[in-house]
Amino acid sequence: MRILVAVADDVFDTGLSSLLDTFETANELAGETRFAVSVVSSRRSVKTHHGFAVPTTPPPSRAPDLVIVPAIACKQPATIVAALDRPDIRALADLVASYARRCRVAAACTGTFVLGRSGVLDGRRATTSWWLGPTFRQQVPEVELEEAEMIVAEDNVITAGAALAHLDLALELIRERSPDLASLVARYLLLENRPSQAPFVAPSHVALDDELVKRFERWIRRHLSEPFELARAARAVGASERTLQRRIRAVLE
Amino acid sequence: MRILVAVADDVFDTGLSSLLDTFETANELAGETRFAVSVVSSRRSVKTHHGFAVPTTPPPSRAPDLVIVPAIACKQPATIVAALDRPDIRALADLVASYARRCRVAAACTGTFVLGRSGVLDGRRATTSWWLGPTFRQQVPEVELEEAEMIVAEDNVITAGAALAHLDLALELIRERSPDLASLVARYLLLENRPSQAPFVAPSHVALDDELVKRFERWIRRHLSEPFELARAARAVGASERTLQRRIRAVLE
Repeated sequence: MRILVAVADDVFDTGLSSLLDTFETANELAGETRFAVSVVSSRRSVKTHHGFAVPTTPPPSRAPDLVIVPAIACKQPATIVAALDRPDIRALADLVASYARRCRVAAACTGTFVLGRSGVLDGRRATTSWWLGPTFRQQVPEVELEEAEMIVAEDNVITAGAALAHLDLALELIRERSPDLASLVARYLLLENRPSQAPFVAPSHVALDDELVKRFERWIRRHLSEPFELARAARAVGASERTLQRRIRAVLE
Repeated sequence: MRILVAVADDVFDTGLSSLLDTFETANELAGETRFAVSVVSSRRSVKTHHGFAVPTTPPPSRAPDLVIVPAIACKQPATIVAALDRPDIRALADLVASYARRCRVAAACTGTFVLGRSGVLDGRRATTSWWLGPTFRQQVPEVELEEAEMIVAEDNVITAGAALAHLDLALELIRERSPDLASLVARYLLLENRPSQAPFVAPSHVALDDELVKRFERWIRRHLSEPFELARAARAVGASERTLQRRIRAVLE
């Protein structure tokens, strides 16, 4: 299986490293190169977030079996939104879009934003870092985001959650080929099977960034003297009743 | 808290990256630099196992609060034993030994072998990657190895298990200062609290490398016609009855 890991400057170190190490461990434990991984960019090398120089090869014209976009090292909403406007990130999104017509594509964490901007996720389900859900919905409303999931696979696209979810993503791809090999790799790396990001969510941190909940809170304060009607509140904040309920629950739980 | 991460060529990418990212996430979530981390080596830069060039600073003469040795990317017994004889790894062991008189030291995965060779662990408890236990006992018999543990802290030394245990190690060090901060970092990185490597052990892979169990099996085959006595078998293979029982159980379970 030929895999390209497509990177740009400020790539999230643990994301890139853990992808490479997971596939390498799989090859070593299998005793053969089942996953031929190359790191590609339009430049000769990129700098990781911690300033490591990563040698890269140019993207080949022949499509591989899979292209993976690891995270850009932006943990906060404002920085990821700014990063998406960088010319090299836009070029990365275009590259992935062109491959997506011919092979599977994958991303984890803020990498999912790059896929989102590329149009690859339009009308599809996806996941990203749990605390970036509100920002993602704002930036790429065409995507059905399920940020409680660790992995979402639909059609030729597979996305994963925050940070260590890069490993969950690589393990999922190995598992598709060989569940036994994936299980052995997980044992060597010390990663258990984790189907959901939900146990990790810190509600107070989601609330800080949830524009919808903020709007709802402002609306509630203005209408405190009136009897509460969910349907009216939902209309006022521009969401369905179901979405508003779900988002409030996520913040309160 | 001043932390040095002491590295040499062929450092395990995920180990180094995840240490840096865990402490950086802690600083960001705390809103201040609680963990001032430098990557040090006697050269200007080192190459990771995947060939990334890591800029480093020279080891300062003033001791920091903590020195951490991440893994060398050797997953198999023969390669780690060979790596320990490299001049740069011997120099790294000497450097750590000199710091250990003045500050805490830590290691994870094969990094524990470097601490072992430096003499820092003599007479102390430690842990390493679960499948390298037999090799570690052979190489550094002066150390009381507990490879089922994820983290072992004793006196001024703290060691951790395989691969992702680099993260468990960093989280443990953050937890000592602030349990709340450690919990929040773990949520952002998607790592749960894991006190033990035991659930990850693949018995068949331990057996392959367990010299003691191999000796025991050879002894059993030679004495099949006689009634079995554990005490005699243990004497014959040079282990205590308790150790022999434990190791056989680990292989069989």
